Amino acid sequence: MDPARPLDALNAARNKKVIVELKNGRQYTGTLKAFDIHINTVLDDAEERVEGEITRKLGTLFIRGDTIIIISPA
Amino acid sequence: MDPARPLDALNAARNKKVIVELKNGRQYTGTLKAFDIHINTVLDDAEERVEGEITRKLGTLFIRGDTIIIISPA
Amino acid sequence: MDPARPLDALNAARNKKVIVELKNGRQYTGTLKAFDIHINTVLDDAEERVEGEITRKLGTLFIRGDTIIIISPA
Amino acid sequence: MDPARPLDALNAARNKKVIVELKNGRQYTGTLKAFDIHINTVLDDAEERVEGEITRKLGTLFIRGDTIIIISPA
Amino acid sequence: MDPARPLDALNAARNKKVIVELKNGRQYTGTLKAFDIHINTVLDDAEERVEGEITRKLGTLFIRGDTIIIISPA
Amino acid sequence: MDPARPLDALNAARNKKVIVELKNGRQYTGTLKAFDIHINTVLDDAEERVEGEITRKLGTLFIRGDTIIIISPA
Amino acid sequence: MDPARPLDALNAARNKKVIVELKNGRQYTGTLKAFDIHINTVLDDAEERVEGEITRKLGTLFIRGDTIIIISPA
Repeated sequence: MDPARPLDALNAARNKKVIVELKNGRQYTGTLKAFDIHINTVLDDAEERVEGEITRKLGTLFIRGDTIIIISPA
Repeated sequence: MDPARPLDALNAARNKKVIVELKNGRQYTGTLKAFDIHINTVLDDAEERVEGEITRKLGTLFIRGDTIIIISPA
Repeated sequence: MDPARPLDALNAARNKKVIVELKNGRQYTGTLKAFDIHINTVLDDAEERVEGEITRKLGTLFIRGDTIIIISPA
Repeated sequence: MDPARPLDALNAARNKKVIVELKNGRQYTGTLKAFDIHINTVLDDAEERVEGEITRKLGTLFIRGDTIIIISPA
Repeated sequence: MDPARPLDALNAARNKKVIVELKNGRQYTGTLKAFDIHINTVLDDAEERVEGEITRKLGTLFIRGDTIIIISPA
Repeated sequence: MDPARPLDALNAARNKKVIVELKNGRQYTGTLKAFDIHINTVLDDAEERVEGEITRKLGTLFIRGDTIIIISPA
Repeated sequence: MDPARPLDALNAARNKKVIVELKNGRQYTGTLKAFDIHINTVLDDAEERVEGEITRKLGTLFIRGDTIIIISPA
């Protein structure tokens, strides 16, 4: 797929495992379930990592978009 | 439920116990009563935790959306 | 009352005593007189606390919404 | 007067002496001449205080709203 | 002149010498040539001061509004 | 090409290798696939550098626009 | 030219050499090719300076507007 718009790339990752990194240095991995134009994002089976170590398992996770730096396939 | 949009996931958590984490490191648990598109959020029976320790019981709590990082089921 | 929207919860607190906490760590208590969609807030009989100690009595106080973290009944 | 909206409280303070405190810790006192919905504010006969000491007399002073934390009668 | 709106006060200062202070602590003096609703501002014959010392002469200077704290007659 | 608008310059770089630098000091190189008016950006074959050293290969990478400082041909 | 609006001043600098200074302290010089209302800016033949020393030559450079403090003729 050749995404014309950035949200097309997120759409292609829907229901797949992604890494989300936040401005505070935390990293969440999980299945990308939903996102919107603010990049508010919902992950399923989310795991939190701080400096590479799993610190919590969170199940469903809502992340406010303005705290996100990058989203990438896991 | 398979949320198409992030706010659908918050809606599914309405009247359930959630954890809300803020940019300043504080954590609030309580029953999710209300939220809006800015992610302004109202919890009932809210408890504040700083580094895992309960520091205050706050009853009804309004949290301004732009201070929120994540919301997750408790 | 079961607030459908976050501002309903603030409306229920109008003319009652509330605690307002700011991003800079200050805390104001007073009677909630007014607020708007930006969460700009006006308190009457406002008292400022820094680390729990009353530092000033301010009478009527306008607080710019984007500096507010939480609002809760006092 | 019982302000229904926060800007009503500022309007009631027009042509009166107010204290304006900024995110950088500075404090300005002066006569409130004008404000808008962004809380951009103009004071007359403005004096700047840093940690309670008068540091400058500024005459007319335009303050950009997003730097303001609180406005209160002086 | 009694400005009803904050930008009226800036308009009254057009073609006069003003001081503009930024969030990063720098101070620019110059002739106010233009501004807009974001408080983007253009000075002519601008001089930069850091801690009161002239550090540069800049001629025409465009300042992005969101970096500005105050504007006052020089 | 003489870009009349900044996004014309990004458009001219589409499908070419670019460097994207973020507010947190990280640098990403990759093929520019998509961007929007918020400067949300998608790179393909993305590599992350911290202080010049490659730290990760990320494949497709979504970068939230408000974290970006500059974009330049690699 | 007497700019009525700040962007008129930028327009007068189009195709001329300018200095752009960012919130992170970096300075870019180059030929101003494009800008928009967010002050997103494109320079040609851009050079990066950190504390006055040229650190990189970047060719075409897109700068996100919200990172910019000032733009001035070089």
